Amino acid sequence: MIDLYYAPTPNGWKVAIMLEECGLPYQARFLDIFHGAQLTPGFLAISPNAKMPAIVDRGGNGGAIPVFESGAILWYLAEKTGRFMSHDPIARKETMEWLFWQTGNQGPMAGQLAHFRMFGPTGGQDYALKRYRGEYERSLAVLERRLRQDEFIVGSYSIADMLAFPWAFIAKNLDVSLEPFPEVKRWRETIKARPAVQRAIALMKDRQNKGEHNSGNNTTLYNQSARHLLDIS
Amino acid sequence: MIDLYYAPTPNGWKVAIMLEECGLPYQARFLDIFHGAQLTPGFLAISPNAKMPAIVDRGGNGGAIPVFESGAILWYLAEKTGRFMSHDPIARKETMEWLFWQTGNQGPMAGQLAHFRMFGPTGGQDYALKRYRGEYERSLAVLERRLRQDEFIVGSYSIADMLAFPWAFIAKNLDVSLEPFPEVKRWRETIKARPAVQRAIALMKDRQNKGEHNSGNNTTLYNQSARHLLDIS
Ligand SMILES: N[C@@H](CCC(=O)N[C@@H](CS)C(=O)NCC(=O)O)C(=O)O
Ligand SMILES: N[C@@H](CCC(=O)N[C@@H](CS)C(=O)NCC(=O)O)C(=O)O
Repeated sequence: MIDLYYAPTPNGWKVAIMLEECGLPYQARFLDIFHGAQLTPGFLAISPNAKMPAIVDRGGNGGAIPVFESGAILWYLAEKTGRFMSHDPIARKETMEWLFWQTGNQGPMAGQLAHFRMFGPTGGQDYALKRYRGEYERSLAVLERRLRQDEFIVGSYSIADMLAFPWAFIAKNLDVSLEPFPEVKRWRETIKARPAVQRAIALMKDRQNKGEHNSGNNTTLYNQSARHLLDIS
Repeated sequence: MIDLYYAPTPNGWKVAIMLEECGLPYQARFLDIFHGAQLTPGFLAISPNAKMPAIVDRGGNGGAIPVFESGAILWYLAEKTGRFMSHDPIARKETMEWLFWQTGNQGPMAGQLAHFRMFGPTGGQDYALKRYRGEYERSLAVLERRLRQDEFIVGSYSIADMLAFPWAFIAKNLDVSLEPFPEVKRWRETIKARPAVQRAIALMKDRQNKGEHNSGNNTTLYNQSARHLLDIS
């Protein structure tokens, strides 16, 4: 059994998709990041970065194994199951490149765009909004060029696609059109149609933040500091 | 022989450190990102994300092997040499967690702080500056908690340290004090003292941007868009 610490966001979906695709038995536990559940000593022992997603694999042979960071979690589950990551050394290397690409570029840049659109102050943020829209669109262009060469990011459907799909899935919520990116659109439709992906995206959909939490009313999520984290023992 | 596509920045140093630590024969090739060298078809074939660092391993048994993304490059070199990544499954999992942590959190957040301090418009960016200073300091707090437990991030000195060190090394340039983070300070001093690290940081030091390139005078680096990338064949 795998415990999945989860909220229904693109980063949460990544792991839910892989668990559903592999048919691994798991239990999703809602982590209420809007009310500080990420800042408890218990959760920090699992996820020292104080973010979800995280898992605890209770079926590992070394006892319970915690894993944090979506890229590391998908890599761990691919190694565990032998699925969705090629055994060929070159395809493996390419999978690693695109895992790091997603978590280091598409993910954080989409995240900054979402922040300034939904959680940042209203007004006065034109430069940041333009910057992160440009960065997010640039990431879609990188994906577009790659998907001109093949149906999926690395040969067949893999953890690289599972990591990148959620942040392309939500383009419309970020007010970004996929029209200039026809290959991304095609790839997004293909992945969206998979039953495992649909189950993942439906997981705890009723817990989604529909704008009720923002920087104006939520000091837990938007007023963190280094000191805060250092004071937790 | 390994070709290293490089500029003297924290992300460039990561790979130079690993190459120097392993004593691998390499040739550093300056990539002039301020004048668009990242946007040529030749470089995009190596690094589809149009950023440095990237390597081409000419000694691989499948002919020349290109690798992009600093996390993937350090993983590749650790696999190739069998060095600086434990073979123990749990330590390996922890190394992967911290590689993804660095490239997905500390790296991009420090990068945004650097952008708004050095390259963004002057004036009017108080919110973004406060946000990214907070995020960068938060990442140092995560590292501080981790380094209370051990001398290095994962047991002994590893690629996880090589990835995280450069962005702690430059704290002062980001006007961030390490005084609240004594373990980070201790770890930074230990790594900084290594001869291989000193050689890496000295590499092409004369090519460092000392403020002569900024958003006011450089449209190559600060006016990229998705379209631009899509138009390169
Ligand atoms: N690099 C991380 C990002 C995870 C992340 O940003 N999680 C957000 C929700 S989507 C979170 O838990 N935020 C809570 C907080 O920042 O306190 C990953 O890929 O796992
Ligand atoms: N996630 C990448 C980041 C690399 C990166 O940001 N490189 C910068 C220089 S430090 C670059 O090449 N910028 C050129 C550009 O953005 O056009 C990695 O870890 O390798």
